[in-house]
Amino acid sequence: MKIMRTIEELKNQCVTAIRAAQSTNPLVPSITNPITINFVANAQLSVGGSAAMIYLPDEALALAAVGAAFYINMGGILPIYAKTLPLVAKRLHETKTQWVLDPVGIGVGKLRQELLMQFKDYQPSIIRGNASEIIALADLWSLEQNLVANVRGVDAGDAVFAARKAAAALAIWTGGAVMVSGEQDLVTDGKTAVLCTGGSHFMTKVTGAGCSLGGVAAVYAAVSDPFIAALTGTLAYNAAGKRAALTAAGPGSFQANFLDELYNITAEDILASKIEMEEANK
Amino acid sequence: MKIMRTIEELKNQCVTAIRAAQSTNPLVPSITNPITINFVANAQLSVGGSAAMIYLPDEALALAAVGAAFYINMGGILPIYAKTLPLVAKRLHETKTQWVLDPVGIGVGKLRQELLMQFKDYQPSIIRGNASEIIALADLWSLEQNLVANVRGVDAGDAVFAARKAAAALAIWTGGAVMVSGEQDLVTDGKTAVLCTGGSHFMTKVTGAGCSLGGVAAVYAAVSDPFIAALTGTLAYNAAGKRAALTAAGPGSFQANFLDELYNITAEDILASKIEMEEANK
Amino acid sequence: MKIMRTIEELKNQCVTAIRAAQSTNPLVPSITNPITINFVANAQLSVGGSAAMIYLPDEALALAAVGAAFYINMGGILPIYAKTLPLVAKRLHETKTQWVLDPVGIGVGKLRQELLMQFKDYQPSIIRGNASEIIALADLWSLEQNLVANVRGVDAGDAVFAARKAAAALAIWTGGAVMVSGEQDLVTDGKTAVLCTGGSHFMTKVTGAGCSLGGVAAVYAAVSDPFIAALTGTLAYNAAGKRAALTAAGPGSFQANFLDELYNITAEDILASKIEMEEANK
Repeated sequence: MKIMRTIEELKNQCVTAIRAAQSTNPLVPSITNPITINFVANAQLSVGGSAAMIYLPDEALALAAVGAAFYINMGGILPIYAKTLPLVAKRLHETKTQWVLDPVGIGVGKLRQELLMQFKDYQPSIIRGNASEIIALADLWSLEQNLVANVRGVDAGDAVFAARKAAAALAIWTGGAVMVSGEQDLVTDGKTAVLCTGGSHFMTKVTGAGCSLGGVAAVYAAVSDPFIAALTGTLAYNAAGKRAALTAAGPGSFQANFLDELYNITAEDILASKIEMEEANK
Repeated sequence: MKIMRTIEELKNQCVTAIRAAQSTNPLVPSITNPITINFVANAQLSVGGSAAMIYLPDEALALAAVGAAFYINMGGILPIYAKTLPLVAKRLHETKTQWVLDPVGIGVGKLRQELLMQFKDYQPSIIRGNASEIIALADLWSLEQNLVANVRGVDAGDAVFAARKAAAALAIWTGGAVMVSGEQDLVTDGKTAVLCTGGSHFMTKVTGAGCSLGGVAAVYAAVSDPFIAALTGTLAYNAAGKRAALTAAGPGSFQANFLDELYNITAEDILASKIEMEEANK
Repeated sequence: MKIMRTIEELKNQCVTAIRAAQSTNPLVPSITNPITINFVANAQLSVGGSAAMIYLPDEALALAAVGAAFYINMGGILPIYAKTLPLVAKRLHETKTQWVLDPVGIGVGKLRQELLMQFKDYQPSIIRGNASEIIALADLWSLEQNLVANVRGVDAGDAVFAARKAAAALAIWTGGAVMVSGEQDLVTDGKTAVLCTGGSHFMTKVTGAGCSLGGVAAVYAAVSDPFIAALTGTLAYNAAGKRAALTAAGPGSFQANFLDELYNITAEDILASKIEMEEANK
């Protein structure tokens, strides 16, 4: 039986993850969309990771073998993905390599739906999306959201709150963690749910805030368990986003500031995070 | 018969378009090149739009159905474009969805020429390019530029001036608007031609100034008619570019500044724009 | 017999190359990866070049015909590369057009190895990589590194030093130049080896510092011989990187600063470069 952790314990584990990523420079390959691929890589580098992006099936397998974790983002998919993604997701699952899935674009197009359907069996360690994407994925996978315990008392923004059951159902299915991004952010492993506050409205004005958060969570997944990795990424983004906005004149300077702040993230930033925690089925 | 608008009326309509984009957050999907795709998306977000970039045929149709407008940029084309582009351009035409075409790279390669040739029948609402691209497209479509009324008195930069007949011919053919980008910028619907001054020399030192202007014009096309959308994009770019250059130390800081200024664009910026107007065939 | 140049003569030739790129705006097309494609183009523009990126075989040939030089980067390869790359590399070789190869990702995947193997016959004018990539390419091409004269006395970082024989062997094979990037940078034509110091640790925290250096070296290859082009790119990067770091708060501001400094590079920067030179077989 899992022993519950206090908020302080969680934060300390996130600090450990941040330092581990900075000191071990884990290689975390990605298959991700061209729109935000540069931002994903730069965010991964900023937190201490090493990035590599590829498309071809054998390259994906080669990098899955040497990567400390892996990131798959479903934006901007190309025909070659039909071969590459099932192959690498299966391999990641078989080798118990941590991998992060961002189901962006779910519902658009036949190939994406087929690929996302296949991923059900390959149990991504972390799933990141906005509320509607998380709900859509739980629906696609026919997860019984109504049987999932309500995470009571969490005063989330409407959208994030609406996705809490879907998030828990996905986390229980995968045995990993789910991140729901929004004005507030929810991170859950199906038992513990943490609601995080921070960031900046500019994060909706810079393309790839969500995509790069998935990539950064994959870096942290190389050095910690899925739930801590998901939480660390969220807290780092909220802290960096909040501070980046202080001197930003708009989305252009915000993005440069944001990478700076992500690079300069400290234990103090994490420990000062505003989070709430709820345990299900107490 | 169309009633001519004064410069003040045009500017006021542009101000309305800018506010409408900021307040309604229209979804404007794109098929665009990987070189500048991130800049296109960030520029669209900066002016209030919502961006989505895809490659596959069924995804393009799905997004065309929900998009308030659409942007097609011919840079960096891939084999899949042979299937995707004719399908979506036809659908956009059939459903009378506003779409913007940037024929970048015209003349290079067989596939691009074939695709651009097909687009003649699908009448893009707005065509944006530099002078030589606009002339090349009018030639490719065999439009009778000599029959087009001369837009007299417009003292454009040589290159832009040289494209004025081609621009008018294209606009008359499509029933939409054409934007010719250069040191000065020409916007025309075939009857009215507006010559705009502003911007910065740094816009030629940052890749994607033109591509992203096409994407931004598509955002404005979601909330106004093609001519006003084209003019609004041009005026916003000229104002933001001019102001961004004031504190730029080079192209790197210019690009960040530029997105900031695009985000902060005001009615005053538009109303202060330096433009000249000429009516054909008065 | 080649007459050896002094360090001062080399630096002056680099100054000439920098000015020539700024004044002639050479078109240098690229086939490069989507991760850093925007940075490559912006770096090329910053030093005075004109950029064009494509994928399709006939487009590559068309641009090879009009380009003043060409850049091929092996990151993020797609299936179409199997057709495009051998065709264009062969053509560049036949027409004696200067071209730069960045063998990034060497060792990952079958297609990349096959393409890199074919490039042996097409003798890239400049090869750029980090130490392990340069060693791997010399191995792939079965070049007899042991027969290459030792470049004595060069006190490089371990990694760069370890690649000096491979670099020389590659340069001798191609008759061009090789750039080994690292904490210190080695540029060699197989006879003369120059070791360069400068840059910033932030260059490892921004994706594409290496890719864009290859693209910039291609711009300089349009206006000078391969060895001077390689050296000019390296000196410009070291100077711009060093100065960009002075006011950078992290990798985000560093990248904007870096493009600014690249744009503002001066003769003084080049002349003040800290370099050491060694002749082989003296």
